[in-house]
Amino acid sequence: MTRKLHLNAFLMGVGHHEAAWRHPRTEPARLTDVRHYQELARIAERGTLDSVFLADGLALQGHVAHNALGGLEPLTLLAALAAVTDHVGLIATVSTTYNEPFHVARKFASLDHISGGRAGWNIVTSAGEAEARNFGLERPAHAARYARAEEFLDVVLKLWDSWEDDAVVRDRVAGRYADTGKIHAIEHEGEHFAVRGPLNASRPPQGHPLLVQAGSSEDGKDFAARYAEAVFTAQQTFEEGREFYADLKRRVAARGRRPEEVLVLPGISPIIGSTEREALLLEKELEELIVPAYGLAQLGQLTGIELTEDDLDRELPDVPVETEGAQSRRKLVVDLARRERLTVRRLLARLAGGRGHRVVAGTPEQIADQIQEWFEGGAADGFNVMPPILPHGLSDFVDHVVPELRARGLFRHAYEGRTLRENYGLPRPASRYANDLVAAG
Amino acid sequence: MTRKLHLNAFLMGVGHHEAAWRHPRTEPARLTDVRHYQELARIAERGTLDSVFLADGLALQGHVAHNALGGLEPLTLLAALAAVTDHVGLIATVSTTYNEPFHVARKFASLDHISGGRAGWNIVTSAGEAEARNFGLERPAHAARYARAEEFLDVVLKLWDSWEDDAVVRDRVAGRYADTGKIHAIEHEGEHFAVRGPLNASRPPQGHPLLVQAGSSEDGKDFAARYAEAVFTAQQTFEEGREFYADLKRRVAARGRRPEEVLVLPGISPIIGSTEREALLLEKELEELIVPAYGLAQLGQLTGIELTEDDLDRELPDVPVETEGAQSRRKLVVDLARRERLTVRRLLARLAGGRGHRVVAGTPEQIADQIQEWFEGGAADGFNVMPPILPHGLSDFVDHVVPELRARGLFRHAYEGRTLRENYGLPRPASRYANDLVAAG
Repeated sequence: MTRKLHLNAFLMGVGHHEAAWRHPRTEPARLTDVRHYQELARIAERGTLDSVFLADGLALQGHVAHNALGGLEPLTLLAALAAVTDHVGLIATVSTTYNEPFHVARKFASLDHISGGRAGWNIVTSAGEAEARNFGLERPAHAARYARAEEFLDVVLKLWDSWEDDAVVRDRVAGRYADTGKIHAIEHEGEHFAVRGPLNASRPPQGHPLLVQAGSSEDGKDFAARYAEAVFTAQQTFEEGREFYADLKRRVAARGRRPEEVLVLPGISPIIGSTEREALLLEKELEELIVPAYGLAQLGQLTGIELTEDDLDRELPDVPVETEGAQSRRKLVVDLARRERLTVRRLLARLAGGRGHRVVAGTPEQIADQIQEWFEGGAADGFNVMPPILPHGLSDFVDHVVPELRARGLFRHAYEGRTLRENYGLPRPASRYANDLVAAG
Repeated sequence: MTRKLHLNAFLMGVGHHEAAWRHPRTEPARLTDVRHYQELARIAERGTLDSVFLADGLALQGHVAHNALGGLEPLTLLAALAAVTDHVGLIATVSTTYNEPFHVARKFASLDHISGGRAGWNIVTSAGEAEARNFGLERPAHAARYARAEEFLDVVLKLWDSWEDDAVVRDRVAGRYADTGKIHAIEHEGEHFAVRGPLNASRPPQGHPLLVQAGSSEDGKDFAARYAEAVFTAQQTFEEGREFYADLKRRVAARGRRPEEVLVLPGISPIIGSTEREALLLEKELEELIVPAYGLAQLGQLTGIELTEDDLDRELPDVPVETEGAQSRRKLVVDLARRERLTVRRLLARLAGGRGHRVVAGTPEQIADQIQEWFEGGAADGFNVMPPILPHGLSDFVDHVVPELRARGLFRHAYEGRTLRENYGLPRPASRYANDLVAAG
């Protein structure tokens, strides 16, 4: 089978551009309107995209005075999107630092049942201090977060396996609902968690809902190599993209896994016009709507430097780019500023579109060219598509870029499978307890 | 305005009777099929019922060898039901013992936004040992659970208030999205929780999603008197129902609240036939499908006595009915057995229908008589309706009992309001921070 592109629609409020809510083609009142997201999910499905993808954080982060923040919780929202779609995958970001594995295993199992096998979990470890403060904690160290995440995953996977696929018998005549020999207490006793199990939900249709990971630090890449089936990453240049791709696939192989079973999906924010000029005009329009105070606050949070409007026309001051090996996004931003010798104002404009993700403005053909170059050149297995304004940026992508990618033989014309896992071309894991002779529970 | 009945559809798998899954009119494979619950929610809405109500537990409890256990997580499921309904309320049970207030506040705020103001939270404190074992804990003491629950509620209410109603400004021209003077850090520092806030979701449409409570212990009733707006309770006899009703309303008044702002809703499992004979036949059919091993295990868990099939035709042995003032359901069951001098077999049959809730078999008129007697006689403001088999038990109730209640002037012909709170006739709370002169965040 020819290798095919995978494309997610990364949904975010009324668009990924930080000034999207001010643009005349968006309706910021729809931020908490489920019909807005249902419309987006249907557009994604019309374009046979693999999934809709939702980021998340556990605090009101960013300067809400100047941006449309405070939306809906992803898992709740995705259940409402499952109800109005049939094929598109549903990927939610959930933190391992401020949750319990029993809840997370159960919620994704439920979403997988509700959607008929379309659930995916984007695993994050929540770096921010603001999040810690909503859970009575100090900001946990990077290594501690990843140690907890590994054990968290271990527990969740055991819970998803705790009902074997054929545990439910439903023999009405004999009064036998389940074969309890196929439902297993997991009896996990670890450093962070003690969980007896079994899960109180039967095995998810996908066996395991799909595992996605988005950290690009060293710990993040190792974690991805061990657990992830798709990796979402921010890469500014083709060279960096290739390097990340090769590095990650090497790590996957070193873990004894097949490199093609972990998809690398960089973010891309496509600013689409029917002509290049039209695309650049839209980019300029959005740029002019930027509120500098917003970007300065964001940049200050990322780099640790307090910046004011007086700094806008200077270059970014020197900052340390490595703290504990954790700040991969900080490094990306500082590298970008230095490489292109950007003033703070220009840097803010570059970050406003995708918060460090690559922004590409052009015609559908030009955007397809970029996607094809990365896909065929060893920098990507597909992309997390981040439309600058929503819904129009997504419908433009689906109606104009997708047909171009199909015409080039790069992208599907129809969904291949029934589940997210099938559409990603990934196998369905068996329960680790299947064929065990001893069972509990 | 005349006082009106309130009716919730308490949904549970393919029916509340423990043998429902064996009955020829149910389809137990639909236990994890969202379309089953969507059909039920639409039936409830056709009958202008106030809400659909979902119980929950955080462990696989009960003998899954003989009953259809292991369904969907309530909040995820209700979001999927919100998507296919317009009026019916959506009440989910969530524990304060094994959750964090930030998550719970946020998920209910999201469900309230998604449903346009139809969310309700049934607050439980999770008594069971099996649940504790899934969260690395010993079973917490009754009083400790309620102390945590009070502080948990305090935090959740503050978070729901943390965005004032008019905090979002959306001034696109000026680039001003929100008035941060109206978004408040809550700075909670208590014995169990430290939560800075604000919530990362704007104020829920209802202000506060509706608060429901289901514990009937002394601590439970005090908690209800302080926080609840609806109380779900198990009452076997009219006299007990009146006593509970009067006691609860007294406690509410003693807290300085208006008694009519806390609705008392006993459970009722109506076994409906077009003739009394037909109803009794259905009851008998279900009784004959009971697997005694299942009921014995349940009863053993409740009373603490190990019972075997040899005990079936004896009366229940003596057991202590008060432990720490907590076991209100145990007392109800033992009282029932003693009052009617039931053998264990008869007791199991009585419990199989509603786990201690009242079961009433009869014609629609007879069931309406019972509802009317309790409603007019000071024992109930309405009922949590627990159909023995689903969906038929619910559609029979909606199509035959509801018209009878309407004809008697007891129940609405159309929804009065847009939100659950409006249909329950309850006021919308203002944010505690409104009109504060000092704001943070």
